[in-house]
Amino acid sequence: MLNMNDNSRQDTVALMAEIGRKARAAARPLAIASPERKHAALVAMAEAIVRGEAEILNANAIDMANGEEAGLSPAMLDRLKLDPQRIRAIADGIRTIAELPDPVGDVIAGWDRPNGLHIERVRTPLGVIGVIYESRPNVTADAGALCLKAGNAVILRGGSDSLNSSGAIHACLVEGLKAAGLPQDAIQLVPVSDRAAVGEMLKGLGGNLDVIIPRGGRSLVERVQTEARVPVFAHLEGICHLYIDRSADLDMAVKIAVNAKMRRTGICGAAETLLVDRAVAATHLVPVLTALRDAGCAIRADEEVLSLFADAAPATEDDWRTEYLDAIISVKLVDGVAGAIEHIETFSSHHTEAIVAEDAAAVEKFFNEIDSAILLHNASTQFADGGEFGMGAEIGIATGKMHARGPVGVEQLTSFKYRVRGSGQVRP
Amino acid sequence: MLNMNDNSRQDTVALMAEIGRKARAAARPLAIASPERKHAALVAMAEAIVRGEAEILNANAIDMANGEEAGLSPAMLDRLKLDPQRIRAIADGIRTIAELPDPVGDVIAGWDRPNGLHIERVRTPLGVIGVIYESRPNVTADAGALCLKAGNAVILRGGSDSLNSSGAIHACLVEGLKAAGLPQDAIQLVPVSDRAAVGEMLKGLGGNLDVIIPRGGRSLVERVQTEARVPVFAHLEGICHLYIDRSADLDMAVKIAVNAKMRRTGICGAAETLLVDRAVAATHLVPVLTALRDAGCAIRADEEVLSLFADAAPATEDDWRTEYLDAIISVKLVDGVAGAIEHIETFSSHHTEAIVAEDAAAVEKFFNEIDSAILLHNASTQFADGGEFGMGAEIGIATGKMHARGPVGVEQLTSFKYRVRGSGQVRP
Repeated sequence: MLNMNDNSRQDTVALMAEIGRKARAAARPLAIASPERKHAALVAMAEAIVRGEAEILNANAIDMANGEEAGLSPAMLDRLKLDPQRIRAIADGIRTIAELPDPVGDVIAGWDRPNGLHIERVRTPLGVIGVIYESRPNVTADAGALCLKAGNAVILRGGSDSLNSSGAIHACLVEGLKAAGLPQDAIQLVPVSDRAAVGEMLKGLGGNLDVIIPRGGRSLVERVQTEARVPVFAHLEGICHLYIDRSADLDMAVKIAVNAKMRRTGICGAAETLLVDRAVAATHLVPVLTALRDAGCAIRADEEVLSLFADAAPATEDDWRTEYLDAIISVKLVDGVAGAIEHIETFSSHHTEAIVAEDAAAVEKFFNEIDSAILLHNASTQFADGGEFGMGAEIGIATGKMHARGPVGVEQLTSFKYRVRGSGQVRP
Repeated sequence: MLNMNDNSRQDTVALMAEIGRKARAAARPLAIASPERKHAALVAMAEAIVRGEAEILNANAIDMANGEEAGLSPAMLDRLKLDPQRIRAIADGIRTIAELPDPVGDVIAGWDRPNGLHIERVRTPLGVIGVIYESRPNVTADAGALCLKAGNAVILRGGSDSLNSSGAIHACLVEGLKAAGLPQDAIQLVPVSDRAAVGEMLKGLGGNLDVIIPRGGRSLVERVQTEARVPVFAHLEGICHLYIDRSADLDMAVKIAVNAKMRRTGICGAAETLLVDRAVAATHLVPVLTALRDAGCAIRADEEVLSLFADAAPATEDDWRTEYLDAIISVKLVDGVAGAIEHIETFSSHHTEAIVAEDAAAVEKFFNEIDSAILLHNASTQFADGGEFGMGAEIGIATGKMHARGPVGVEQLTSFKYRVRGSGQVRP
């Protein structure tokens, strides 16, 4: 570890270049490490976290004291705080990842050619992944473990607020790597907090960084998406829509609307806009809005909705473009599924949209014509989550169309190559 | 079409922005167009090409006259030249693409969750693809047709040498789009030849370009890879290796070596370096090199090889890094498959490598430890081709690890989304 105080910008540039080279060097032995060895490393990491509880809590106490002194908000302090229960959850998370199927070497597809060649498409690691995150120290463990499972080296750059906590967790990860005989540079934590380190990562560390995953608030993701010269797996925001079709079962619509908005309002899969088919405005709108209001949700409605449900504030154009991440929903009447699609294709961030309907044709139209990462029928938008998809764990959700889209789990952290088996074939 | 003569740089910037907006607008109707409609458009394009032979030949005659006047090399003039046979081949190529399975809507994976949700991963178009190519006018048709089949809008930027030929071919493609009722902006050809147009594409046309595919020589690909702010599917070079293991069948090794190097020396899948296991230097080296020499291949050998086969020039370090694209091969002895892997991981461009061996353990080691897009066992490197892989057609071969790797066919020009079917599930 360098002394944080005497880091000039130039030192950081040199340090980051060195971190990149070490990651690339570690990536090759890691890519060919056996599933058993990676599993052993992950189990050893979880054990080291449990054993290291006292050191992790001490390090976290320093971060918390610094954070209080620096005037961090209660919400930020809560994200930063670790206790024995949270530390056990971190260890359990690593164990869950350890038990996932190893994706490397998986045969994704295989076929024979008329000339007798047998072609297979096989999963391989991506290489070196950079993860840039903010104050949650648990991301250190989650991201490190997921990248390792997929055979990738990872460079972790946590927020300065959690530098000590992340450092203590990272030491446990390295213990696990060593115990399993894997290169300890497979998981590196950037040991300095100056922003130049992030800048170097966004430039790609001289070709030694293959993809960047930002984990944090909008301003972090926006900076990464704008400046990165390497691919980014991320979503900027989740402006998720719930559409209630004329064919919807009313009870189901009420139940899904309340869950999609109110179960947890701060997650990216929370619904932000409710679209109701004008054909059932008279029957469905008021019961759904009443249930939302009774659950504590504020309503921003267009004029037509206001005329039917007075307990709401008027919506402006901005509301259709806003991710509230709060107990607020914007509401609008639309002309059937075609109207819903038009609104969604105009305003959505292409993260997740749901339709409540019994009419199969309306569902198919919604599924075919909306180009968002996740579309749901008769289910809450809050299922937009790698765990709920059965991926075991996720590092985030991507709304880009390149490589990874939707929940990013171990499979999405891999690439592939072709293996062709012949018996002496030459090309005519 | 703008008049080429009064295009200031600013006009080009505005023109390219407009082309980008039109492509994005065309992408949505195209993404939801039925397979039948896309098929009909492609068939109509092929018919228009056949019908338009005279116009295409006239346009090509102008390009050829300009090219001769400008002093283009015979090789470049040959690439530029069209004749009735080549025009029929262009039409047949479009018909082949028309008959490929439509990838959009394909269910790639599907699974059930314990809560009853059924999750499907379904192919979708990528969006807007930019293709930047040089003098071959047939790329206009190949790239336009492949992108359309995958439901993508495409912006084609051909070389200035072939502007008239490409324009005549493009007019036929637009005829096909119109005949099938698809937006004619689905396939646009940049109508100006100044380099600022390429620069605008590399910047991504204000978010209206999702991926760029360069088709051409090293300097074009290098510029695109260095400057592009959007993802690129490409390979810079194909430094492909053939390794002959101690367990290789000698006759097979000779046959594959001659084919891998000499069948066509100018393609990216041609072998450039031959690695021979030191354990069979006495038996295998001379017969293989003799066959290569007799086939007209020049040999660049390290000292050890020179001592066994005198009819060769000495290789320098540069030879291991050189894509000859010519009847030249570099040759080296290595210590078994481990030595071959070490050399390949150091010098390869990670395009295609082949092993000739009867020992299954050597093959598995070669397949597992080399991270190139295509690995072959007992088959020629010249099979590195989308057509040979059964993809029907390819737009190129990619060596990056993001999204597309190896031959880029219609499937690789798609993304995916998730469709989740429920029966009222809410998240606990």
